[in-house]
This record gives sequence, C-alpha cells and structure tokens, in this order.
Amino acid sequence: MSGIAPTPDPPYVAVIFTAVRSGEDEAGYLEADAAMEALAKAQPGYLGYEGGRGMTVSYWATEADAKAWKQVADHLTAQRLGRERWYTSYKVRVATVDRDYGWSRPAP
Amino acid sequence: MSGIAPTPDPPYVAVIFTAVRSGEDEAGYLEADAAMEALAKAQPGYLGYEGGRGMTVSYWATEADAKAWKQVADHLTAQRLGRERWYTSYKVRVATVDRDYGWSRPAP
Repeated sequence: MSGIAPTPDPPYVAVIFTAVRSGEDEAGYLEADAAMEALAKAQPGYLGYEGGRGMTVSYWATEADAKAWKQVADHLTAQRLGRERWYTSYKVRVATVDRDYGWSRPAP
Repeated sequence: MSGIAPTPDPPYVAVIFTAVRSGEDEAGYLEADAAMEALAKAQPGYLGYEGGRGMTVSYWATEADAKAWKQVADHLTAQRLGRERWYTSYKVRVATVDRDYGWSRPAP
C-alpha cells in the first residue's frame, strides 16, 4: 500500500486495475510491479498511484496520458507476462474523477 | 480481496476510498468492514465492491445512489468511528466509469 496519492483538484482520470492472481511466479510479479510503478512515474501526465492487494489505481491528467502509458514498450511486455503468468483474470476501468474530499486527523 | 465485481456496461459510478489506518481497534475495524459490505449490498443501485489493503472501490448505478449510501444511518456511525479510531487520514474520489475491458485465462 502506497498511501494517498497527492492528486490535484478534479477532473482527472483514474484507471482502476483489479486482478485475480494465478499464484505463479511471485518473485517475477513483485519485481515487475516495482519496475512498472517507477516507469509510470516518468510518464507525461502521471499524477499518482495507489495500490493494495489485487487492486491498483493510477491517476492521470488526461485520458490521452492514460492511453499512452498503456502503449509504453516495457509496459506492453509486462501486460503480456501478466496474461501468460501472473493473472487468471483482470479488469480495467477507465474513469473520470468528478469530485473528491478527504480528512486527516488533527494534530494532538 | 473480494475478486472482480460483476459491473454492467459503462457508464456507472465508482467511489474510490483510500485510507491510512491508525492501527487502533483492529477487531472493531474488521467487524465494521464486514457489516458495511453487507449493508451496502442491500442499497438501491449497488453494483459491486472491490477491496484491498487500505483501498476499496464501490460501484453504483448513479451518483445519487452513491450519495444516498453515504447517508445511511449505520454507515454514518461507521464513518464517525473511522475518524475517531481507525484512520489517520482518508480520501474519497467519486468517478464516472467511461469504459472498461477485461481478460480471463482461457480454459486449458
């Protein structure tokens, strides 16, 4: 879990990725997961990333930025390995964040 | 992790909830989490729920349905307890899912 991403005021784009893991090649999966997070950070329009077990959300300035990330060469390789090894199924949902709000515990 | 929610064709609404846990009252948190999932399922417009460590996404037919769920009495109580006990911070993002796609491993 990577905490709360410091996104700007809406609107922006959220890509919700939910997967069922196969259980195969755990080490390779973890290595690729870290590499893809680092690579995503270097892409135009990248705003942040939040991840949990089996679910990650990446945030992008525009839908064009999210689509461009999908086509980055090393990411295409990871997507192929995901289908061959790491996942039995997944779903990607591309959404527009219309509003957001948050809360933080006041300092004591 | 609850698997991939069986959502209909877009558009529909995703409420992305990301939290930093305080570490307090783990048993109470887990009990409330299960109770809120069961209660959400009974609400009008509820489509599904996906959850991981520190991040959950609930899906709703309309934004009005998502807003109504926020005001359900037992849910209001859970929100208050969340601020008093379980979380040090959280963020809620309300988004419209514009498109989605998925993949499943073919049967061998």
